[in-house]
Amino acid sequence: MRVHICVLPKAGILDPQGKAIAGALARLGHSDVLEVRAGKVFRVDVSADDPEAARRAASRMAETLLCNPVIEDFEVEVIG
Amino acid sequence: MRVHICVLPKAGILDPQGKAIAGALARLGHSDVLEVRAGKVFRVDVSADDPEAARRAASRMAETLLCNPVIEDFEVEVIG
Repeated sequence: MRVHICVLPKAGILDPQGKAIAGALARLGHSDVLEVRAGKVFRVDVSADDPEAARRAASRMAETLLCNPVIEDFEVEVIG
Repeated sequence: MRVHICVLPKAGILDPQGKAIAGALARLGHSDVLEVRAGKVFRVDVSADDPEAARRAASRMAETLLCNPVIEDFEVEVIG
């Protein structure tokens, strides 16, 4: 099964890359942008039998390697 | 509305970061990992009236700034 693990800066943590992107989008005419946060995504193909097992495995991966819990939050999304 | 724009290396493009992460996960005991691709995610809050308008706006952002179509693909997901 395929999962996306999205790792983004926690609320309250400065994100200069996201700010710069929001400014660039505004200059390019995207006046509808309110806020941008920039992070990392990991697309993992995992040999799990069902979506719930894939979600649990992905959460363990984020907790053990992919996410720094001091400054980052993560979300897991099972693609299928 | 909130959208996630996931930007990942195209199929066939080498992804040494993803390979390194797959190796590290295997060494940490995640024997169920088949493949990892590493990319960027942008969480954008956009002032759109409906999910379809938010999706269209996010696609334009990816095409004009966030994604390099030579080596990257993008996916838009409307969070709500």
